[in-house]
Amino acid sequence: MTIKKLLVANRGEIALRIMRTAREMGIRTVAIYSEADRQALHVRYADEAVCVGPAPSSESYLRADVIIDVCKQLNVDAIHPGYGFLSENASFASQVRDAGLIFVGPSPEAIEIMGSKLAAKAAVADYNIPMVPGTPSAITDRTEAKVISARIGYPVLIKASAGGGGKGMRVVENEAEFDEQMDRAVSEAQSAFGDGSVFIEKYVTSPHHVEIQVLGDQHGNIIHLFERECSVQRRHQKVVEEAPSAILTPEIRDAMGRAAVDVARACGYYGAGTVEFIVNDNLDFYFLEMNTRLQVEHPVTELITGVDLVKQMIWIAEGKPLTLRQDELRINGHALELRVYAEDPANNFLPDVGTLDTYVRPQGNGVRVDDGFEQGMAIPIYYDPMIAKLVTYGDSREEAIEKMIRAIDEYQIAGVQTTLSFGRFVMEHEAFRSGQFDTGFVSKYFTPDKLTPPTNSDEAQLAAVLSAWLLTNDKPASSASQPVTVQRSNWKKNRL
Amino acid sequence: MTIKKLLVANRGEIALRIMRTAREMGIRTVAIYSEADRQALHVRYADEAVCVGPAPSSESYLRADVIIDVCKQLNVDAIHPGYGFLSENASFASQVRDAGLIFVGPSPEAIEIMGSKLAAKAAVADYNIPMVPGTPSAITDRTEAKVISARIGYPVLIKASAGGGGKGMRVVENEAEFDEQMDRAVSEAQSAFGDGSVFIEKYVTSPHHVEIQVLGDQHGNIIHLFERECSVQRRHQKVVEEAPSAILTPEIRDAMGRAAVDVARACGYYGAGTVEFIVNDNLDFYFLEMNTRLQVEHPVTELITGVDLVKQMIWIAEGKPLTLRQDELRINGHALELRVYAEDPANNFLPDVGTLDTYVRPQGNGVRVDDGFEQGMAIPIYYDPMIAKLVTYGDSREEAIEKMIRAIDEYQIAGVQTTLSFGRFVMEHEAFRSGQFDTGFVSKYFTPDKLTPPTNSDEAQLAAVLSAWLLTNDKPASSASQPVTVQRSNWKKNRL
Repeated sequence: MTIKKLLVANRGEIALRIMRTAREMGIRTVAIYSEADRQALHVRYADEAVCVGPAPSSESYLRADVIIDVCKQLNVDAIHPGYGFLSENASFASQVRDAGLIFVGPSPEAIEIMGSKLAAKAAVADYNIPMVPGTPSAITDRTEAKVISARIGYPVLIKASAGGGGKGMRVVENEAEFDEQMDRAVSEAQSAFGDGSVFIEKYVTSPHHVEIQVLGDQHGNIIHLFERECSVQRRHQKVVEEAPSAILTPEIRDAMGRAAVDVARACGYYGAGTVEFIVNDNLDFYFLEMNTRLQVEHPVTELITGVDLVKQMIWIAEGKPLTLRQDELRINGHALELRVYAEDPANNFLPDVGTLDTYVRPQGNGVRVDDGFEQGMAIPIYYDPMIAKLVTYGDSREEAIEKMIRAIDEYQIAGVQTTLSFGRFVMEHEAFRSGQFDTGFVSKYFTPDKLTPPTNSDEAQLAAVLSAWLLTNDKPASSASQPVTVQRSNWKKNRL
Repeated sequence: MTIKKLLVANRGEIALRIMRTAREMGIRTVAIYSEADRQALHVRYADEAVCVGPAPSSESYLRADVIIDVCKQLNVDAIHPGYGFLSENASFASQVRDAGLIFVGPSPEAIEIMGSKLAAKAAVADYNIPMVPGTPSAITDRTEAKVISARIGYPVLIKASAGGGGKGMRVVENEAEFDEQMDRAVSEAQSAFGDGSVFIEKYVTSPHHVEIQVLGDQHGNIIHLFERECSVQRRHQKVVEEAPSAILTPEIRDAMGRAAVDVARACGYYGAGTVEFIVNDNLDFYFLEMNTRLQVEHPVTELITGVDLVKQMIWIAEGKPLTLRQDELRINGHALELRVYAEDPANNFLPDVGTLDTYVRPQGNGVRVDDGFEQGMAIPIYYDPMIAKLVTYGDSREEAIEKMIRAIDEYQIAGVQTTLSFGRFVMEHEAFRSGQFDTGFVSKYFTPDKLTPPTNSDEAQLAAVLSAWLLTNDKPASSASQPVTVQRSNWKKNRL
């Protein structure tokens, strides 16, 4: 079945990004928006737009019933959920299917399985997927626990069976401290969950976060599109991503790709999905979880493979078989993504609110900006404070880094603090440059004093600099011996 | 020698494009500008900027003496000439060299040779370069002329030896009309140039314009980076370009590439250069001329090869050997370029002047815009009226076309007429879609009534549409059964 009209159940950059591909495919687009997003670009870009409720997501973007109703009224064929919001909600996917609409994503069953760590583990049990070594269930015998810990090797992690949020979780560095930490873990678990049972897992120190992009069709074909390295994180949230990873060997890449395809196969996956792994310094890799949706950082994969992932998702949802062949896919060049958040890297990355008084995107060869803002718009406080994804592409990792630094310097944002300056810190850091970094990057290397200090901080000051310069510099060189010149710092230095 | 400071002896998009790469390479940039370009983006982007004279190019951008003097005063190491202006001026290249500066381009000798069709022909004589068949010099014996014409095959072209501008030029379709056309040609040549001697060349009907990008270093290594097809022209000027060509076979591509490398070798070429060929429907190709500079349409080559041509030019100028290997270069995907000119396709492509009242660039996956303007700027009447190069890249030719149409629709320009609507006509035309088109495309297929008629033509009208829509559409769907909706044409349809 061919999709003729697509509703994008999302907002901001990802809504625009999906609509652009839909438009290229000749598919009409419907935007939904909350009252806070009345003037958002995704609303203007769509062929039709519908206000679905007040600003809080629970009253608008998460209103499955309203969204499905809109589809019926506007003769929409299909819904693309983007990421976040309803994208990994199995019940929503079911409701969409039950309403006779196409959900551009996997089956509700696959979402359900991969939404639970235990169910996911059970599903992949028949495949030889490397998992973090440990006991699969609760353990009570301390002697046995020590034998297991010695076998998998210290440090180990004692985790509450009923746990979550770090409660009842203890790192054990060596056997000497095992009893003490075990006591604490059991006691914490007991008081937090009323259940003192715990289990043991290998503690991976300084892991790399590496994920594999997969695509499956509804005919059982599954392929992978290589990896993304997402180890630079702040507050356990990714902020810089890249493809390919600087640390993988072709053999490990291949093995991870095959493991990811197996994970997808284990849950009958179709659509675009991401299989996340942690990787240690020896390049041992362990399955973490599967994200059953389009990932924020998908553009880096698009740039190194030339594959439009949204187009593939739509084709798959229409029931078309994959035309991409694993052995024909190749990595070309290197791509980097910096998430430009409205937050203050000098103040613990706290979200910042405000209006984009100045907003000028960088341009040129190898630069892609996915965003949903323009100058003069306010950053709504109700949603994720990501302003843009700044993506660069080069022939080599070094070239992609050079382009990223140039693009950061060219990006002009005033009115809110952003992660641009932090991105520049990352790009120039030796550990990042060498590829020798892990999820501990920020805690190990970053302090606010490492940021390039701004030479001025508001638009008025920049305007003053420019006016002064224009006044002194608009006289032509009337003779060859007396050109009028001015020494200037570049336009971006004024803005960092 | 490493270049630390580069002066870009150009303006507009190409000056910005060169400076971006220079900045990525850590090279300081110096802009020159005329009084008319005081507020131009290339002036703001550079680290330093110097006004070199009044608006007319002869008094500013063409002032070799002033430019070299600026270099001395600012301790500039090297000059990049861009295209146009002084870029193919052998005397300027010599002056630059004599001043102890690096000219980012070929030797003055190579520029000189390729600047003359006769010298170029003589230079490549030792190589087996296909040339348009014909007599190399003046012919007087009519019987011999007919024998030659029969051998090379009709139609042939009779050209005045002293000719130019189409005077004394006659197409002969068959032997029966030979004498008549010969008489006219000789008579026209005699009256126009005082010299009735003529020569004969094969007349290539409906030729394709296909050019090969070459790169040579100062150590004798020369490679090619495949072709660009530039057959869509208006007023004998390119307006749509692509890479690769839709008509070449791998064998012809390879043969043309080798011929282009030979042409470059014949004049001891180094730097980036373009060898132009005409190709007939049988895919016979003939050497036309060599452009000894960076070409306007170079981005399509950058996108399909991943090679930054400006970076290569700078490395070559520094004396570095090429690290690219012919057998490692590969074509990935397909790229298209539309030159967005301030001119009116409905009025014989006459240049238009005015201010960019609205100027919003398209964005997203596979779209690159190289320009030198922002909203509110005027198009100076003194220079080439190109506003931007809109470049798209896709996995296939079809995908690149889809992205181009989407990007054209997304581009918002008000205040001047542009070639955007013409670009849309080309993209949707069956002949272009099928790849079966040649330099006669515009005269064969285009008439102004084929342009999509604008539904409104100024910004005020768009603003009115948007306001009306905002007023009627800002009420949320308070219940699931009554979403407020609006049917809208897309934002760009309002602008074409």
